[in-house]
Amino acid sequence: MPHEVITFGEAMIRLSPPNFRRLEQAQSLDLQVGGAELNTAVGLARLGHKTAWVSRLTDNPLGRLIANKAREAGVSTDHVLWTDDDRVGVYFLEFGAAPRASSVVYDRKGAAIANVKPGQIPWSNVFQGVKWFHVTGITPALSATAAEATREALTSARAAGVKTSIDLNYRNKLWSPAEAGKWMREFMPLCDVLITTEEDVGKVFGITGKNHEEAAAKTADEFQLSMVAVTLRDNPLVWKNAWTAILYHQGKILRTRTYEVEIVDRLGAGDSFAAGFIHGMLEDNPQKALDWGVAASALKHTIPSDFNWITRAEVETLLKGGELRISR
Amino acid sequence: MPHEVITFGEAMIRLSPPNFRRLEQAQSLDLQVGGAELNTAVGLARLGHKTAWVSRLTDNPLGRLIANKAREAGVSTDHVLWTDDDRVGVYFLEFGAAPRASSVVYDRKGAAIANVKPGQIPWSNVFQGVKWFHVTGITPALSATAAEATREALTSARAAGVKTSIDLNYRNKLWSPAEAGKWMREFMPLCDVLITTEEDVGKVFGITGKNHEEAAAKTADEFQLSMVAVTLRDNPLVWKNAWTAILYHQGKILRTRTYEVEIVDRLGAGDSFAAGFIHGMLEDNPQKALDWGVAASALKHTIPSDFNWITRAEVETLLKGGELRISR
Amino acid sequence: MPHEVITFGEAMIRLSPPNFRRLEQAQSLDLQVGGAELNTAVGLARLGHKTAWVSRLTDNPLGRLIANKAREAGVSTDHVLWTDDDRVGVYFLEFGAAPRASSVVYDRKGAAIANVKPGQIPWSNVFQGVKWFHVTGITPALSATAAEATREALTSARAAGVKTSIDLNYRNKLWSPAEAGKWMREFMPLCDVLITTEEDVGKVFGITGKNHEEAAAKTADEFQLSMVAVTLRDNPLVWKNAWTAILYHQGKILRTRTYEVEIVDRLGAGDSFAAGFIHGMLEDNPQKALDWGVAASALKHTIPSDFNWITRAEVETLLKGGELRISR
Amino acid sequence: MPHEVITFGEAMIRLSPPNFRRLEQAQSLDLQVGGAELNTAVGLARLGHKTAWVSRLTDNPLGRLIANKAREAGVSTDHVLWTDDDRVGVYFLEFGAAPRASSVVYDRKGAAIANVKPGQIPWSNVFQGVKWFHVTGITPALSATAAEATREALTSARAAGVKTSIDLNYRNKLWSPAEAGKWMREFMPLCDVLITTEEDVGKVFGITGKNHEEAAAKTADEFQLSMVAVTLRDNPLVWKNAWTAILYHQGKILRTRTYEVEIVDRLGAGDSFAAGFIHGMLEDNPQKALDWGVAASALKHTIPSDFNWITRAEVETLLKGGELRISR
Amino acid sequence: MPHEVITFGEAMIRLSPPNFRRLEQAQSLDLQVGGAELNTAVGLARLGHKTAWVSRLTDNPLGRLIANKAREAGVSTDHVLWTDDDRVGVYFLEFGAAPRASSVVYDRKGAAIANVKPGQIPWSNVFQGVKWFHVTGITPALSATAAEATREALTSARAAGVKTSIDLNYRNKLWSPAEAGKWMREFMPLCDVLITTEEDVGKVFGITGKNHEEAAAKTADEFQLSMVAVTLRDNPLVWKNAWTAILYHQGKILRTRTYEVEIVDRLGAGDSFAAGFIHGMLEDNPQKALDWGVAASALKHTIPSDFNWITRAEVETLLKGGELRISR
Amino acid sequence: MPHEVITFGEAMIRLSPPNFRRLEQAQSLDLQVGGAELNTAVGLARLGHKTAWVSRLTDNPLGRLIANKAREAGVSTDHVLWTDDDRVGVYFLEFGAAPRASSVVYDRKGAAIANVKPGQIPWSNVFQGVKWFHVTGITPALSATAAEATREALTSARAAGVKTSIDLNYRNKLWSPAEAGKWMREFMPLCDVLITTEEDVGKVFGITGKNHEEAAAKTADEFQLSMVAVTLRDNPLVWKNAWTAILYHQGKILRTRTYEVEIVDRLGAGDSFAAGFIHGMLEDNPQKALDWGVAASALKHTIPSDFNWITRAEVETLLKGGELRISR
Repeated sequence: MPHEVITFGEAMIRLSPPNFRRLEQAQSLDLQVGGAELNTAVGLARLGHKTAWVSRLTDNPLGRLIANKAREAGVSTDHVLWTDDDRVGVYFLEFGAAPRASSVVYDRKGAAIANVKPGQIPWSNVFQGVKWFHVTGITPALSATAAEATREALTSARAAGVKTSIDLNYRNKLWSPAEAGKWMREFMPLCDVLITTEEDVGKVFGITGKNHEEAAAKTADEFQLSMVAVTLRDNPLVWKNAWTAILYHQGKILRTRTYEVEIVDRLGAGDSFAAGFIHGMLEDNPQKALDWGVAASALKHTIPSDFNWITRAEVETLLKGGELRISR
Repeated sequence: MPHEVITFGEAMIRLSPPNFRRLEQAQSLDLQVGGAELNTAVGLARLGHKTAWVSRLTDNPLGRLIANKAREAGVSTDHVLWTDDDRVGVYFLEFGAAPRASSVVYDRKGAAIANVKPGQIPWSNVFQGVKWFHVTGITPALSATAAEATREALTSARAAGVKTSIDLNYRNKLWSPAEAGKWMREFMPLCDVLITTEEDVGKVFGITGKNHEEAAAKTADEFQLSMVAVTLRDNPLVWKNAWTAILYHQGKILRTRTYEVEIVDRLGAGDSFAAGFIHGMLEDNPQKALDWGVAASALKHTIPSDFNWITRAEVETLLKGGELRISR
Repeated sequence: MPHEVITFGEAMIRLSPPNFRRLEQAQSLDLQVGGAELNTAVGLARLGHKTAWVSRLTDNPLGRLIANKAREAGVSTDHVLWTDDDRVGVYFLEFGAAPRASSVVYDRKGAAIANVKPGQIPWSNVFQGVKWFHVTGITPALSATAAEATREALTSARAAGVKTSIDLNYRNKLWSPAEAGKWMREFMPLCDVLITTEEDVGKVFGITGKNHEEAAAKTADEFQLSMVAVTLRDNPLVWKNAWTAILYHQGKILRTRTYEVEIVDRLGAGDSFAAGFIHGMLEDNPQKALDWGVAASALKHTIPSDFNWITRAEVETLLKGGELRISR
Repeated sequence: MPHEVITFGEAMIRLSPPNFRRLEQAQSLDLQVGGAELNTAVGLARLGHKTAWVSRLTDNPLGRLIANKAREAGVSTDHVLWTDDDRVGVYFLEFGAAPRASSVVYDRKGAAIANVKPGQIPWSNVFQGVKWFHVTGITPALSATAAEATREALTSARAAGVKTSIDLNYRNKLWSPAEAGKWMREFMPLCDVLITTEEDVGKVFGITGKNHEEAAAKTADEFQLSMVAVTLRDNPLVWKNAWTAILYHQGKILRTRTYEVEIVDRLGAGDSFAAGFIHGMLEDNPQKALDWGVAASALKHTIPSDFNWITRAEVETLLKGGELRISR
Repeated sequence: MPHEVITFGEAMIRLSPPNFRRLEQAQSLDLQVGGAELNTAVGLARLGHKTAWVSRLTDNPLGRLIANKAREAGVSTDHVLWTDDDRVGVYFLEFGAAPRASSVVYDRKGAAIANVKPGQIPWSNVFQGVKWFHVTGITPALSATAAEATREALTSARAAGVKTSIDLNYRNKLWSPAEAGKWMREFMPLCDVLITTEEDVGKVFGITGKNHEEAAAKTADEFQLSMVAVTLRDNPLVWKNAWTAILYHQGKILRTRTYEVEIVDRLGAGDSFAAGFIHGMLEDNPQKALDWGVAASALKHTIPSDFNWITRAEVETLLKGGELRISR
Repeated sequence: MPHEVITFGEAMIRLSPPNFRRLEQAQSLDLQVGGAELNTAVGLARLGHKTAWVSRLTDNPLGRLIANKAREAGVSTDHVLWTDDDRVGVYFLEFGAAPRASSVVYDRKGAAIANVKPGQIPWSNVFQGVKWFHVTGITPALSATAAEATREALTSARAAGVKTSIDLNYRNKLWSPAEAGKWMREFMPLCDVLITTEEDVGKVFGITGKNHEEAAAKTADEFQLSMVAVTLRDNPLVWKNAWTAILYHQGKILRTRTYEVEIVDRLGAGDSFAAGFIHGMLEDNPQKALDWGVAASALKHTIPSDFNWITRAEVETLLKGGELRISR
């Protein structure tokens, strides 16, 4: 049976001190695996879609660990490219509390995926029978060859009739707004759906609006995108946020419920939105995609890990209203 | 010295992943012991009452662990019936965060207590010198013979002049509202105090009111109960609730303070209410019983475990007002 | 690509107190997944073989956890039969130290796999393209229908031209020697390889010899088996054993190196032997199978978990001599 | 290079059960080191000041551990007095949740520092080149000789032209308000800055005002202090407080931002205020001292430990506004 | 039902860094409860005897924790004397490995039990119906009044016709050989059984022999003791010892099996010997007492904690030979 | 007061899964800090010498953590060169058990110290008043510029009249034997003491002997070294080794006791030997240096961490014979 969805990007070992310790206080680090596109793949697998994640990994215990965890969460690693060279990226995460934000130290330079090159991945083979391809702005930010490989992937997906979505995900530690803008402008015509924050379209495309809705509309207009989803986070505190999103679709703004979220771990929330959204598109319509995206990612905030360890039934219950009593 | 209070029911091994992990993410499980009637016995022992818990346990490390933990918390296990047969029930608990409720997977089928039979426990001996007997709707829900043993216990308590209380505690994973209603209607004439939520009298007895107070009053009327306590939880979030109770007593509604509780572990809160309430009845009057019940159970929310590891002095301090500064 | 190896049986949640605590001392339990046939499947996957494990699992967090962990270790769960009924078995493990043996409390009654019935698993489909099928004496011991399903599996494997191996694995908590003997005698003609201990052939078949070699030979003779492997453990202590095996093959006794093993976790050692042995048979010859079986399972003793988290390269290094210096 | 700041007092081993457990539930205790004056020294070292902590310690693993942790956090232990006698104090901390306050059990009697005597510490040597000396009301509360040593220290600091600050820090488990008042009245003329809460000036000096500001002003007037800082905590809950301070300086009340703090560990917050305040005074002016004091101590609430594991850059970012997004 | 056995002495909170860390490396400490006479009481309770431990405890969370853990292990705390004064002793334990011995830092000065005085404990009441009284040389070493209380206890036991045993347990951190000798010589005529090591009779009584047997015999002769048990440990390494004991009884040396023990935690081994020995005496004869004492205490080495978490059935199995296979 | 000893090299974050887990099984990693020359500096500081470690570190939480831990263990970081560039190296450690050796995955490429250049460290200033300088073959292996900086350091030390020692420490993952040989031959004339294993002189210098003694003698001869120390490990198992060393000194072979070591963590054993050896040379003579080196490093095997958390008194006790009883 062919895969239904493909994602492409880096995954790293995530190391975080337990119990709100600072890194300087750590005597142990909790280990998770995370990476935007893998997170989205996991979200889709948990919702029942046959999903594969494409990447390049060093064949050592750390690289294998990443692939193991992808499979554990239901994602196929059949298309991972293994190498004896390079290294596996690591990121160190400190959990915060108001007025101290959570923070991240990346140590990803020289990772195997940053050295991926066009021509290495057999995209036409990968996309056989596939319905959706998802990537984010992090993959092209890793290196020039990774950017080229991303272009190759998007072009191949289009050629194969696969729907495509991209999450802008601007990372200022990886590249400048100018570089990001250059590549992203090139990718927009290859994408069906853009997922972003208002802030990121400002930084990467220089597009601003008087509110979220206008920013979404302007972006859709500029790049002729039929759908632009904008996630919205209200964070006066670190442990409790309000979370929702809007979708600009063919000239209209669609809305959905806003969730008050008690935050265990917000890493991967945006990636979970993408997963829920793609799920909704594969099964239903843009409004449902928005509903699923926000509900799935609201749940993500309550789960330690970048991965969204939910079930389809749990999201459905939440979409029907949910409640906070203990079920027994 | 005879026991002052007796409770009767199941206790299980409780296993929960630490740090808000889902069960599918667990590499270890925290172990606690819990069960409604044992929880209430512990609450009473911690408040200074000589209390015994009656149950049936398999004589293996898990059964012994349950009895050990009861004794550790001050509860006598002298009346536990030991068997080489059957098994010890387990329940798996996932802690949630809004919008994901905490959830429970029960694995209690075939437990030794479910196979308890009338005639096995020497009730007239057990109740010698005892002042109060407490049970909940969970015990009769375990099996037909357990329901019969519960009836036998309540009848024997009455015969021995022991005051009786029952917590409705409807569990839809154990029996239907119809079955629950049948047995509970039979038990009501044997009880001095009914403890419940508004929701449970609706499900089990089909009694509804335009508010909590009316539901309590109607229930008291229907079964000629002199006291019906209704616990009230306001839970817009998982980590912070408002918690109080009302008591219908001889035609009047008694009220007490509402506590804003930061929730570490809400399991056993209702059972702690029962403990505080019975304590107040043994030492004082219905209003004090309500005050103690709500104060003791408000504190329970802050303590990891089904057991309420408080001291009598701590509840007294809270009843006098309390404060949230660190005492030093 | 079809699977190369199929195994069939139960897997359970394994819960063990850390740091040599007794169960009665536990405040937390380490969680692993284990089950003889899944362990063997993992061993084969780690050595590079496309392997699927066939079982029946309850679709709840515990059942999903088992399937997740199988996939994490590289084993396909495509042929798992999911059900909403029954439960997931659990076993509690206490690690010992001389003179206290490690010990196990099983709580596996009513598990989904025990209720598997002939006709439920599409064996002819499962065995398409498969080279080897492995099962142990635990699966038929679970219930009469599980025994019938095992017979069905072995018969189908034979019909499909698949090589078969069985590990006697007598469990006296599951059935009597007489019952075991009855079913095992029925299975012997369906098997190419028997893996056992000297003790088990004594209990199950009543076969004894003046030494391991004779017991192996007699068993091979009685059932016309071309290969009987006997694992040998010398355990004067709990933390250090000597470990090896012999293979009776066509009238000859083959031998291999004896390993002095420092024991972290010996659960699953026999299952790892089976994995290494089958690997050797698939790639090479009986002597190599014996060498791989013993080397792979010697390494297993050093790894916490029932699963053998080794690599093919590590076993090869050990087979070439190995050394105990830190590699850097 | 000489030290810039000196502090003087006790540090203890701090032991606290993890995960909100009560002490009676503990199977392990987290270990930290804390003590008001050491905490302030750490805060100053983290902000870039060469700081030494003066104390008396028993030369055993626990005493060495305290000195190690001081050095780890950047504080010099060159002036610690080592002894083979006496013991190292311990304090047991339970973390609470509303309506249960966090609580402390001290076990500090007989500690080496309580037996410090005037003449033991070479103060004129210690204060060479030093700019600031800080002590709190805990040190003199430990014993009569410790109070005398504190007087000796303050007198020597004055003689050496070192600025002095004292935090009132009244501890009712150590001495009575009358005793505290007697010694503190003696110390006031030796101090440039008084740090306190409104409650403490009431208890120790019997000074009350119709509000914080008036209490500060009256205290400054009574003792001819040019600066009195009053920290202000609004704690309707245990996990979320509002935190700020005011400074009475030469007839005026200075104010700064109020921080909504999500509380991981509020121990040492006041000590961090002192550190930030002294830092501001050493580098800038009273308003900046107040700003730094409150910002640094607001961050302290988010860090497990009595020590304030921040960086100068982090406080600066917060002073410029800060934000609660994850930086990446 | 009266108690069968009484023991009398101190119990402390035991704190040890996990995983062989030194105290200076600790970020957490494992918490256990231990004390020679409580350990023996636990050993007897686990073997089925109704046992009470007599002590004096400060009524704070640490004191309650000790009593809780005694009850958890089956020991009655009905005769504990509670006080608001004094403190609870603590001892810090570092686990070693050859060539580094395990080591202990005691912090027990000022504990409530050290301030026990003759007349405080109602011994004639305590000993009602009791068969055996056990104490060790640690209790009188705590203070002069504790020594007097010990004498009072032994005298009362004798008066009540209770059998008495004493374990010499010389602690050179608590008193000198001369002091120990003075008190112990006074106690010998009050004891039926002396338990000791060869080294301790040398230090305390100045008795030496050319071997263990002669030292035992000489000691028995000097004090007219009918039974002197001498435990024997051969410890060339920290993790593996050989363990046995001899018993001098009425002119004869009795012997039993020597166990090769893999050591998880040897604290309390001698106390477990006493428990097993007393059990054997209560149920059987001196030879069986020796057998039970050594078997029970051999098992103790494998269990983390000062308490011997065994069952009677496990000791019986070991006495019948035992084996180191996993039972399943 | 000037430093007495200087060491120069890299330190890394060391991450290891607890409880013998493989990296692929890890959900958390224990964090330590280690690096050959820092380890030796720590060993010397613990024995009472004022020691500084020279390195280059990235100024982020990981770099600060390394410096913090050095100071915690008593080592001065005054000469550390801080940079905003580059990264902090990490190494992943798996603890093994026979027949699986412990293993290490290095991830140190691009670390700040690898980019150190001659001229960056003010060696003449660093060496003021210093008595001993120690470095290992790892520092020059990091990069060409690091090798040059090592040469510069050794030359400066010689010029300043500082004694020098070098540990060959060949790392085949960092450079080839040929490269190592070229640089090491250049360094030999700059060194007073060479510390090595027999295997390393074979690989790096091509020197072999018929035994350890001859290899040491030949090496001393070839490079005109007055002292060559060779550490000797006998490792038939992973958890128990025999450990000693010989010293070739002016034509003679000196020997010392062989220790049977139970191994908790052997990382840093060689570095502890160097520390003990240098300590002995600073205080005494070559024979004592050998005695201290072997005793200190024997103890190291029992301590988790690369650092040797011993005291001078503990080594002295061991040198006087030691014993494995618990001291109390």
